[in-house]
Amino acid sequence: MKRFSAHKDSPSEPNMSFEIKERDLLARIGRLRTKSGIVETPALLPVVNPAVQPIQPKAMGDELNCKAIIVNAYLIKRRLGEEAIRTGIHKLLDFDGVIMTDSGAYQILVYGEVETSPEEIVRYQEDIGSDIATILDVPTGWEASEDYARWTVEETLRRARALANVKTREGILWVGPVQGGRYIGLVEESARRMKELPFDIYALGSPTPVMEQYLFDLLVDMIAAAKANLPLDKPLHLFGAGHPLTFALAIALGCDLFDSAAYAIYAREGRYMTECGTIKLDRLKHLPCSCPVCAKDDLKNLLDMPKDERERQLARHNLYVCFAELKKVKQSIGEGRLWEHLTLRAYGHPALLTALKKLERYKDLLEKQAPVTKRGGLFFYGYVDLIRPEVVRHRRRLLERYSPPEGTILLLLPQAKTKPFHESEEVRAFFKALRQELGEKAEEIHVCTYAAPFGVVPTELDDVYPLSQHEVAMPLDAEMVEHVANCIAEYIRTKGYKRVILLNDVETWRGRVKVACRLACEEKGIPFDALEVKSYGRRWNEGTLRSSIALIKNALLGIPSA
Amino acid sequence: MKRFSAHKDSPSEPNMSFEIKERDLLARIGRLRTKSGIVETPALLPVVNPAVQPIQPKAMGDELNCKAIIVNAYLIKRRLGEEAIRTGIHKLLDFDGVIMTDSGAYQILVYGEVETSPEEIVRYQEDIGSDIATILDVPTGWEASEDYARWTVEETLRRARALANVKTREGILWVGPVQGGRYIGLVEESARRMKELPFDIYALGSPTPVMEQYLFDLLVDMIAAAKANLPLDKPLHLFGAGHPLTFALAIALGCDLFDSAAYAIYAREGRYMTECGTIKLDRLKHLPCSCPVCAKDDLKNLLDMPKDERERQLARHNLYVCFAELKKVKQSIGEGRLWEHLTLRAYGHPALLTALKKLERYKDLLEKQAPVTKRGGLFFYGYVDLIRPEVVRHRRRLLERYSPPEGTILLLLPQAKTKPFHESEEVRAFFKALRQELGEKAEEIHVCTYAAPFGVVPTELDDVYPLSQHEVAMPLDAEMVEHVANCIAEYIRTKGYKRVILLNDVETWRGRVKVACRLACEEKGIPFDALEVKSYGRRWNEGTLRSSIALIKNALLGIPSA
Repeated sequence: MKRFSAHKDSPSEPNMSFEIKERDLLARIGRLRTKSGIVETPALLPVVNPAVQPIQPKAMGDELNCKAIIVNAYLIKRRLGEEAIRTGIHKLLDFDGVIMTDSGAYQILVYGEVETSPEEIVRYQEDIGSDIATILDVPTGWEASEDYARWTVEETLRRARALANVKTREGILWVGPVQGGRYIGLVEESARRMKELPFDIYALGSPTPVMEQYLFDLLVDMIAAAKANLPLDKPLHLFGAGHPLTFALAIALGCDLFDSAAYAIYAREGRYMTECGTIKLDRLKHLPCSCPVCAKDDLKNLLDMPKDERERQLARHNLYVCFAELKKVKQSIGEGRLWEHLTLRAYGHPALLTALKKLERYKDLLEKQAPVTKRGGLFFYGYVDLIRPEVVRHRRRLLERYSPPEGTILLLLPQAKTKPFHESEEVRAFFKALRQELGEKAEEIHVCTYAAPFGVVPTELDDVYPLSQHEVAMPLDAEMVEHVANCIAEYIRTKGYKRVILLNDVETWRGRVKVACRLACEEKGIPFDALEVKSYGRRWNEGTLRSSIALIKNALLGIPSA
Repeated sequence: MKRFSAHKDSPSEPNMSFEIKERDLLARIGRLRTKSGIVETPALLPVVNPAVQPIQPKAMGDELNCKAIIVNAYLIKRRLGEEAIRTGIHKLLDFDGVIMTDSGAYQILVYGEVETSPEEIVRYQEDIGSDIATILDVPTGWEASEDYARWTVEETLRRARALANVKTREGILWVGPVQGGRYIGLVEESARRMKELPFDIYALGSPTPVMEQYLFDLLVDMIAAAKANLPLDKPLHLFGAGHPLTFALAIALGCDLFDSAAYAIYAREGRYMTECGTIKLDRLKHLPCSCPVCAKDDLKNLLDMPKDERERQLARHNLYVCFAELKKVKQSIGEGRLWEHLTLRAYGHPALLTALKKLERYKDLLEKQAPVTKRGGLFFYGYVDLIRPEVVRHRRRLLERYSPPEGTILLLLPQAKTKPFHESEEVRAFFKALRQELGEKAEEIHVCTYAAPFGVVPTELDDVYPLSQHEVAMPLDAEMVEHVANCIAEYIRTKGYKRVILLNDVETWRGRVKVACRLACEEKGIPFDALEVKSYGRRWNEGTLRSSIALIKNALLGIPSA
């Protein structure tokens, strides 16, 4: 069990409580060790309110495989006081998994104040036996002025520093909340300073209104600001994020834990969650889900239930949907395809696609942190995928680390349908003809493919992962075409070729590649030739092959370009 | 019960067996009446093979709410012969829902021939008590030459025509299969001629290899060719389409029935279906689904089962996924949001997005058939959505039916974040200032908003559905910007304005709108003024308002543009 050190100068002990097993983008699958067992992250901790609880914690564990829940220690204290201390929170809730407690901060946000002190609530959480506990932070909220927001940052930090002098026990994982709300600079500062304090878990507060208003692009900025300034080896909790809609996005940005009462609140309001939205009960014509509540599609039965029972079933469904989404996210992390999953979810609401596009701003952070591993084939749909670490990385490496054979002629072939490109029928026929016609002169030709989304792919590298292990939706969109054209131009400008020959697939590339090549060659002062070839997916004919070889022969003889 | 008429000259009776309840795109929710009950369409009929059946039909009905199954009458005949006639197919399979029978056509495809005749298999299906029966068609298959394909079309038609003389009973719904395979012209012809024969249900054959090779864009062409030439008031069955991946696409193009053994075949091969793909059992790290098989996420338990039991559970899961997807599709049809669902699915695999983009070719067919109804708010993600009937329809109507107030000055405002636009803060402030400054002269100004995806939205129409009832992902993609710029230019060219003033949101529209306006005005010979305003989502300041009014005053005074 990790021991706390209140002195920020003393080196903190290696963190034994959080072990990262797999990574993708900024996401990770981790194992968080607590005194009541291990929680696999990312995890959603359903908010349990003993006073109005549609599903008992034990059923959550038994039926839904839920390993951890969260309860509001402040409300428990007000209602049950000493009783909860005598019984212990696990027995009180009849739940033997992991119990996290919140501190009443939400009540500060709603009511302006709470009838407890930061010290009292820390002790109470210790006394009832919380596994994960939260200091009494001061949430920034959404309507806050920048001055007030700054004060919440400072006051939360003060209380965070005070923890070391208040706490009396070991074995509890303490959560240090980051404040700042929508003031991104404040979030950065709050995170940077909270990082100095030895919490086991960090948390980001106040995203609920941001999510309720579908300001997911702002959520991206908030999480990225916190994440970039917090220690990567500790879990990050996102307070109050309980809709499956946003899990993938938050996880991709490095959030590990979520808590929410949404499943129950939505159930009370007759709202049916889906992975990508919410449907009012009275707009349902089916139960569009396979969970045990919905499998039989018996909507009438659900509607005819007494209100309490219907609420209970709806809450169960909502939780099933939440947990299924987390399993999907985890499965996709394991496959190295979280970006694909994120993309899928982005098409659940335009505001989510707006948020995905916002990741453009953080693509270097993503590229830096995303693991370099060879896993499944990647799917590319369009220009938004240019944010992906794999694309950013290839372009950077090609520029910084790659040198083509010196003094050769660059021959640019359009991407073939088959991958790796050098094994495609067209390219093999081409290489064969090259060798037959040119003999060892063929060595003076360096063949590259131009392709979406990677831009230039030197043939000798084209089976390096993931340059061939991917699928691309056709036809390409304008931004993708422009990107590839720019990559080619950049490549020509920065490498030492003596001449460039382009086999130009006009239809697929809208003529943009040729223009970009020509400009780059002019700038560089080297000759440029282009020859039109059939578009993507169609076979080249003999004529194309012969004309190409003739062009290459001319180039080798140094005959000026047309 | 509908009676057959073999004479194509005699008018066929009104079709009582298929009632369409709701429509969206070319999809419909229908009720297909059979002698064993009603099937709500779209429906998937799981293939049941009594010899190797992982899930009993009764369990499909009880647990999965499955109302209809399909069985191969040819295989039943070979194995059980007279016994099945004595028992009757419903009792034999212990299933009291709807039973469709296939005829052995698949065996022709695989083995080249079958040990029965078209007449014999028609009689046998009558004798065992099929509810929906299929003539012994000759599937075109995938590898077929065009000549052979043509022969399969002719021979299937010959057998279809012969049905009237062979069949002896009423009360069975007969299926007329359309052939042609990947030869789209042949599919069209086959459908056109099959339409003349009085089948209760039409079917499209041979898509399985197309789907196995993920040639979904070709599938689009095949279904569209059949659908455009078949009667819209009859159900269309798509043979062998059993992956949830393709349901939305096929249904959107008007398919109503599916049959497939995929759930069982995949289970045998250890393949786990998801709504957007397939995962090999050994690559699963979770059970990323909420169905009763997967809810507890007990992968280890599944892997440790005896092979037969694991196959059974996997088949159950696969069916749950298939049925859940059908419920999602139906729910989305009911909400008028099938396009949104289709888009979501398109991001399950690049080949599906390629297929969605292929719908561009059929956008007029879609627009013509898609219902005009006011339902939920629409989501727009990017240029692919320009295929949507709502977009095509608005543009067409604006061109064909709309006349702005004669001789006015067109004032083009950029889209505001609030909708309807005329209720946004910016626009209201603008209108107020206009009235204050210009008095009744303000009548000479006609205000329109330019906006994605609808192009030009005259202010007086901006709360007509769905011009305000939608959300758009920002920032816009290049094709969307180009589309709106083209719409504006087209609008200016075709209407009778005497002058155009553009409030130009350069950042959102990349300068394209201004260029398009200027060119259109030059062509038209009318003055054009533009004023830069703040980009989408930011408030305009007083200065913008004042400059705009000044510009408008000049325009009203006839002062030449800058």
